Amino acid sequence: MNTAKIKVRFYETDMAGIVHHSNHIRWFEMGRVEYLRQAGVCVNALTKAGIMTPIISVECVYKTAARFDDDLILETKLDKISRVRVSFSFRIIRECDSAIIAEGRTENAFADTKTYRVKRLPVDYYERLKEIKEKEGE
Amino acid sequence: MNTAKIKVRFYETDMAGIVHHSNHIRWFEMGRVEYLRQAGVCVNALTKAGIMTPIISVECVYKTAARFDDDLILETKLDKISRVRVSFSFRIIRECDSAIIAEGRTENAFADTKTYRVKRLPVDYYERLKEIKEKEGE
Amino acid sequence: MNTAKIKVRFYETDMAGIVHHSNHIRWFEMGRVEYLRQAGVCVNALTKAGIMTPIISVECVYKTAARFDDDLILETKLDKISRVRVSFSFRIIRECDSAIIAEGRTENAFADTKTYRVKRLPVDYYERLKEIKEKEGE
Amino acid sequence: MNTAKIKVRFYETDMAGIVHHSNHIRWFEMGRVEYLRQAGVCVNALTKAGIMTPIISVECVYKTAARFDDDLILETKLDKISRVRVSFSFRIIRECDSAIIAEGRTENAFADTKTYRVKRLPVDYYERLKEIKEKEGE
Repeated sequence: MNTAKIKVRFYETDMAGIVHHSNHIRWFEMGRVEYLRQAGVCVNALTKAGIMTPIISVECVYKTAARFDDDLILETKLDKISRVRVSFSFRIIRECDSAIIAEGRTENAFADTKTYRVKRLPVDYYERLKEIKEKEGE
Repeated sequence: MNTAKIKVRFYETDMAGIVHHSNHIRWFEMGRVEYLRQAGVCVNALTKAGIMTPIISVECVYKTAARFDDDLILETKLDKISRVRVSFSFRIIRECDSAIIAEGRTENAFADTKTYRVKRLPVDYYERLKEIKEKEGE
Repeated sequence: MNTAKIKVRFYETDMAGIVHHSNHIRWFEMGRVEYLRQAGVCVNALTKAGIMTPIISVECVYKTAARFDDDLILETKLDKISRVRVSFSFRIIRECDSAIIAEGRTENAFADTKTYRVKRLPVDYYERLKEIKEKEGE
Repeated sequence: MNTAKIKVRFYETDMAGIVHHSNHIRWFEMGRVEYLRQAGVCVNALTKAGIMTPIISVECVYKTAARFDDDLILETKLDKISRVRVSFSFRIIRECDSAIIAEGRTENAFADTKTYRVKRLPVDYYERLKEIKEKEGE
C-alpha cells in the first residue's frame, strides 16, 4: 500500500465551502502515480516506453466533506494487475480526526501513446507489480 | 431527459493528448444543473432556500477518449428522487460520429447550506421533479 | 473582435462564493481559440502543422466578482501579430448588468510541437491574421 | 520570503505536453497561503474573522515550460502591505536544473466575506506582516 499526504488547496474548494468532488478523482490519480513510483514504475518511464494508461472506470463514495487546508492521507492499494489492465482502490482520511473522506476504485488500461490501442505492459514491469501485490497478501 | 452541448476546452486536455477524466465528472454536474433548471429548480434558488446538494457517489465508465474541440452531447436523466436524495444517470456522445464517450451515475443528498446536515427538499420542488420523472416513463 | 458567451459553471467557484480567478485565464484561452477559428486558423490545424502556441505572459485585472450561473460575454481582440508572436487583449462583461468582470492581455509564441523551439507561423496564416487586424482598424 | 515545494501533477498538464499556464496562477495562491501561514496569519482564521482576500490583479511571465513530475520551488515575497491591500511577487524554479519557470505578481484586497466590500485588515495582523516585510529588508 502506498500512503501519500495531500494538503487541500484553496482553488480545490467550491461555493458550497467544501472541496469540489472532482478533486478526489484527481487525487486518486496522484495515488496511482505514487504507488507505481514506489514499485519502481515511473509514469514518465512508461511514457518513454510508449505506454499510456487510459482510464476505464472510476467509482467514488463520498463520506465526509474535505475542507480548505485539511491535511489528508491518501491510501492506494493495487487490487488487480494483468498485462492489459490494472485496478486500484483508494481511501482518503483526514489526518486530524481520522474521518474517512472518501473511498474509491479505478481501472486503467495499458495503451500505445500513439495509436491509443491496447499495448501489453512489458513483462518486467508486470512481474514487479504482481510480486508487490502478492507480498501485500491481499 | 435534458440534453446539453459541450465543446471541449483546451485546458481540459492532458499530456496524453485527450480530455482528462476528471472533466467528465464536472460535466455530469453541468448536466444536473441544466436538468434541474429545465424542471424549474434553479441551483441558485435552492441555495437561497438554504439547500445544498452534496455528492454521495459518482461512477463513470469511459468508452472513447474525447479530444480538444470535440462537440459533445451530454444526456442527463433523473433516475430516483426522494426528499433526501436524488440520482441521475448520464451519457456523453460525440456529435460528429455518435461515439459514446462515457456513461455514468451520480447520487446527491439534500443538505443545509450552514449545518451541512440532511435537509428535506421542499415539497413543491419534490413534486415537480417526481412528476417530470413519471412523465418520462422509465 | 471575437465575442463569445460563457456560462459560469459550479466547479469554477471557490469557497469565497465567487469564481476562482484562475478561470479568467482559462477563459482568455477560449477567446484566443475562438478568435483564431473565426479567422480561419483552427488550433487543431495548427497542431497538425506542427505548431503550438506556448504562453509568454498573462495579465489580468479583476474588476467585479463573477458568480455561479452568470452569463458572461468574452471579447477578444488581436493586438499584435508577427510571425513569431501574437498578443491578444480581453474584456469579460456580465450580460445582465454590463458589469466589467475583468480585463486582460496575453502574449503567445509560435513554437514547434516537438522541439518546443520557435517556429515561424506559415505566411498564409500570418497574412490572414494581419489582414483581419488591419480591417478592424485599431 | 517563503519557499514552498510543488510536485507537478499529471492533471496539471495539457495536450501540448507541458503544464497548463493557469496552474502557475493557482500555485501563486498556494504561495500566498504559505507566506501568510508562516507569518502567523492563517487564511482560515482570516475567514473566521470575516475577511476574504479577493484578487485585484495577476501578472505572470512564463520563462520555461514545467512538465509532469517536475519538482518545483515556489518563492513568495511580500512586496507591499497596507490595511486594505497586499502585493506579493513570486518566482518558480525547477529544482533539478535551477531553470526559472515563471515570475509573477499579484495584488489582493481585504474584503468582508458577506458584503464583499472593503474591510480593513485588523491592526495586529497588519503590524505582524509589516514587521516581517521590514525585517526582510527589501
